[in-house]
Amino acid sequence: MDISNRSRSMQSSPIRKLAPYADAAKRQGIHVYHLNIGQPDIKTPVCGLDAMKAVDRTILEYSPSQGMLSLRAKMVSYYAEYGIDLSPDEIIITSGGSEAVQFAYMACLDPGDEIIVTDPSYANYMAFAQSCGAVMKPIHTSIEDGFKLPPVERFEEQITPKTKAILICNPNNPTGYLYTKKEMRRIRDIVKKHDLFLFSDEVYREFIYSNEPYISACHLEGIEQNVVLIDSVSKRYSECGIRIGALITKNKDIREAVMKFCQARLSPPLIGQVIAEASLSTPQEYMSQVYDEYLARRNFLIEGLNKIPGVYSPKPMGAFYTMVRLPVEDAEDFCKWCLTDFSYKGQTIMMAPGSGFYTDPSEGRNEVRMAYVLNIEDLGKALEVLTHALDAYNSR
Amino acid sequence: MDISNRSRSMQSSPIRKLAPYADAAKRQGIHVYHLNIGQPDIKTPVCGLDAMKAVDRTILEYSPSQGMLSLRAKMVSYYAEYGIDLSPDEIIITSGGSEAVQFAYMACLDPGDEIIVTDPSYANYMAFAQSCGAVMKPIHTSIEDGFKLPPVERFEEQITPKTKAILICNPNNPTGYLYTKKEMRRIRDIVKKHDLFLFSDEVYREFIYSNEPYISACHLEGIEQNVVLIDSVSKRYSECGIRIGALITKNKDIREAVMKFCQARLSPPLIGQVIAEASLSTPQEYMSQVYDEYLARRNFLIEGLNKIPGVYSPKPMGAFYTMVRLPVEDAEDFCKWCLTDFSYKGQTIMMAPGSGFYTDPSEGRNEVRMAYVLNIEDLGKALEVLTHALDAYNSR
Repeated sequence: MDISNRSRSMQSSPIRKLAPYADAAKRQGIHVYHLNIGQPDIKTPVCGLDAMKAVDRTILEYSPSQGMLSLRAKMVSYYAEYGIDLSPDEIIITSGGSEAVQFAYMACLDPGDEIIVTDPSYANYMAFAQSCGAVMKPIHTSIEDGFKLPPVERFEEQITPKTKAILICNPNNPTGYLYTKKEMRRIRDIVKKHDLFLFSDEVYREFIYSNEPYISACHLEGIEQNVVLIDSVSKRYSECGIRIGALITKNKDIREAVMKFCQARLSPPLIGQVIAEASLSTPQEYMSQVYDEYLARRNFLIEGLNKIPGVYSPKPMGAFYTMVRLPVEDAEDFCKWCLTDFSYKGQTIMMAPGSGFYTDPSEGRNEVRMAYVLNIEDLGKALEVLTHALDAYNSR
Repeated sequence: MDISNRSRSMQSSPIRKLAPYADAAKRQGIHVYHLNIGQPDIKTPVCGLDAMKAVDRTILEYSPSQGMLSLRAKMVSYYAEYGIDLSPDEIIITSGGSEAVQFAYMACLDPGDEIIVTDPSYANYMAFAQSCGAVMKPIHTSIEDGFKLPPVERFEEQITPKTKAILICNPNNPTGYLYTKKEMRRIRDIVKKHDLFLFSDEVYREFIYSNEPYISACHLEGIEQNVVLIDSVSKRYSECGIRIGALITKNKDIREAVMKFCQARLSPPLIGQVIAEASLSTPQEYMSQVYDEYLARRNFLIEGLNKIPGVYSPKPMGAFYTMVRLPVEDAEDFCKWCLTDFSYKGQTIMMAPGSGFYTDPSEGRNEVRMAYVLNIEDLGKALEVLTHALDAYNSR
């Protein structure tokens, strides 16, 4: 009676694996600045909270497996504003973007099938691939190049008869990179040439700080049947806890396959759907304020980081993460040490070790991912703590 | 670019696959009595609804991957009342019992590993097995024998070097069968002898109508490390929509493996956890009324069914389902026909085809699963509709 090889070989999440050490630090009265997880300190829109309080149901019953029609219909208008033309039938509500990724894999990939991803990439893409037996084939991007997309030859080198899909996250978690129009066209051409699925996670589309246009995978002509869009309201409305995401595709075969998995798990969370639906009416003013806030935080954090001796971070163009190179050999050890052996004026920081975002964990060993989800005052304190922590760690 | 063989070979849920036909019937103004799904018409406890309305958070943030400590701590007291001694650490909150089943499989089983189940069994156990590549090995139970557990030899016959687990549901969905003390000891002996995992789904423990005692897998001595308890608040408090379940085990290796999958999907639904925690304080009076209601429904439905010529259902001892043998050759065709070609006084019924609950779908072809989740008046009308439907179907 042994646990599965599947679970044994699975990496623990770099975002959450150090949580027990953070809890222990907190129990000692140390304040921990959480830069490890994309949990914003931004308030949830009042219209979402109000909708929850106004639920007048007497039975909290299953919702349809594909999600409530009223929510899906309202999402159609939301996407229309981004030039993405959909019908409610093309939208399937999931339990967070996480479940959308899992369903995309399950519906499209068999064990041994390969997915091309840029490296580093969101750690849980790998975890879900391991759960379903799919194999990640990385296209290396580097912090020195600001994580820009490598030439098309790098993709071609990774394509084998087993290649079934390309997975992108745009704007990117963990790098903050935004694909240019030219890069998106390059991806389209490869997808078309090799007839691949294109899984595109675009949950951060509201948070683009460069002057480049947002090019959705859904904007790419000629691969409409190949695209599976992964989405979530978690970050947009600071509603990570309600677990509402979506899997969107114009490909009926994929939708029918996904629906089998949807029906097996019965339904996505009901109250979350009510909150998400109301949140789609969030005033533009809220969205603008949140945007300005993240922009200011990005500028503050990146400037501050690059002032610390030996620290380097490129300037992310979107989302609210950045990869940071630290003057340490083993960033995971340093992250853990910050929680277990260090504090500065009763404070410490929690960061996500960078290696966990690479398919080969021997890469990114001197990098961390930081989420700028704290206000500028706290970010300033976190930078101060980091400066002192690096000093202390390197003079042990 | 083809969908996966995994999804192609997956059966659609017998509980939900006919939903589009039901929707079409409703659009024509026909009232559909839903006996197909375990969605009770029982009101959710007011304390649960009130807790949702009283949420005073300004940010709906991620909860811990293993679920909120306050909920897990309160669940410890709940289990203590059933003689199950737990600590909060041994409880992992999941997105419904569904996710608990998936995590149990993922943590314990590799592709090709075998799970022994009684046949018929809850259809989604099979769907989740297909998703993760596990193989179901059925132990046949029959409607003629009231679905009682076959002798130990039947189990031994199914055990191979690939056998990793036995999965039971007690009280049983879809049969309503309750395992006797003797049967549970028999299961324990097999689990112990062959060192297997025992996955035990006990979400219906509140609904036992016989005088037999409830024997949890957690009561069985000597296999404490083998047991994984699957649970959910969905049925207990008529809160199917909040998607709150639990995976419970004293086995630390399993918990650590499960936590990797928990962290990958980040967290279970936040508001659902708030509602579930409050619902654990549901007054005994509510539970007694609900119990009496289901008992009366069971007696009414089973008596009514057995009065219809050619129809047979054994008397279920627990849960709120029963398997029913109908005087038709192809119950799935009949179920579909009821939705597409039949109505009686503007009404029809939706039932779950029985074959979907058997690992070999050529079995149970003249059976359906009914859930007695409607009030007695509606059950009476549904029986009337069924009587006329069978007449009309068999005289086409």
